Amino acid sequence: MNIAVLGTGEVGQSLATGLAKAGHTVTLGSRTADNASAAEWAAGTGGRHGTFADAAASAEVIVNATSGLVSVEALTAAGADNLAGKVLVDVANPLDFSGGFPPRVATFDEGISLAEHIQRTFPDARVVKTLCTVNNAVMVDPARVPGTHNVFLSGDDRDAKKVTGGLLGDLGWTLDQIIDLGGLPTARPIEQNILMWLALSQALGTYDFNISVQRAD
Amino acid sequence: MNIAVLGTGEVGQSLATGLAKAGHTVTLGSRTADNASAAEWAAGTGGRHGTFADAAASAEVIVNATSGLVSVEALTAAGADNLAGKVLVDVANPLDFSGGFPPRVATFDEGISLAEHIQRTFPDARVVKTLCTVNNAVMVDPARVPGTHNVFLSGDDRDAKKVTGGLLGDLGWTLDQIIDLGGLPTARPIEQNILMWLALSQALGTYDFNISVQRAD
Repeated sequence: MNIAVLGTGEVGQSLATGLAKAGHTVTLGSRTADNASAAEWAAGTGGRHGTFADAAASAEVIVNATSGLVSVEALTAAGADNLAGKVLVDVANPLDFSGGFPPRVATFDEGISLAEHIQRTFPDARVVKTLCTVNNAVMVDPARVPGTHNVFLSGDDRDAKKVTGGLLGDLGWTLDQIIDLGGLPTARPIEQNILMWLALSQALGTYDFNISVQRAD
Repeated sequence: MNIAVLGTGEVGQSLATGLAKAGHTVTLGSRTADNASAAEWAAGTGGRHGTFADAAASAEVIVNATSGLVSVEALTAAGADNLAGKVLVDVANPLDFSGGFPPRVATFDEGISLAEHIQRTFPDARVVKTLCTVNNAVMVDPARVPGTHNVFLSGDDRDAKKVTGGLLGDLGWTLDQIIDLGGLPTARPIEQNILMWLALSQALGTYDFNISVQRAD
């Protein structure tokens, strides 16, 4: 598939590399056409890079890996027309560090999640929230953590979740690791979960972990 | 030990029964001395019951299993003097259903958790947050869920956490299942986690589960 990954931070680069390795044509999108880390990534991997709009225009799937507090701005730069009808995989964490550490998780309007805020702002995009509950290393290499630990899907569009599940599979997630939580409002606890993740990472002294949901028999 | 369990709902009764079975002397505390479910519990188990103040007065450890939105009121009725110097195990979830389902998790003052709010209101109590991340059946019978799934401790008093860890052990939690997250502010993500728990319970169709934290090797 032709995939745009918006955001040139660690998460964007990891996902771009992981998806490219799986055989997808990936364009790393950034605010400007001459972004240095995007150019470096493209040179190192043989991938492409360009502006948010360049990347989104030709893509079938768009991955939002920008910082959560500026995601709507980045997606606006990508262009509503370039998002319309497309699967928009939102992996962003809307962390607000303005009050220090630990950060707060920003909510929007009357308490909705970033994913819902994106969906309302771009009603023709098919938004799916996923992957924001793990570190970027685990995102693209889940086997580094033992056991059937989990990743979650939230979204109102069934087919978009199916496409996203396929991409998770390409990154190494097995079917029994993927839990579909339901509609897009389930992105609220998923986004808030970063605070639990931060507390756990501090207690464990590592980012290299994940949670596994275990049921009684 | 002499333990007061405040709150006669499912969680309070389960914990009271579980702790009594482990050999502790348990008093189930409620708003009034003639609470019907407390009397029934006491008759059925041979335990004691009484007002919040009755229960707290003679107790070495107090378990707050009241509804989170009225916990401070219940603890005020128990009496600050009866809490002073004692381990106060807070298992309450401050769920606010005033806006419908899913509920919100109430925060206090400038965004602090219920556990911190209780600690600030009763500065001489030794507050530990735990167990609010699982259903009451799992609280008192962790072996019903397979694997080394986890329970968490948050608190500023090391000895109080040790005592609480011991009580968790009495309920069947093994040492490797108990994760000490650090100070009481870590109760914030722990309390927010109920939203993730609710979303998971809806996706799985059961309350009978828990999360396990799995680390890379």
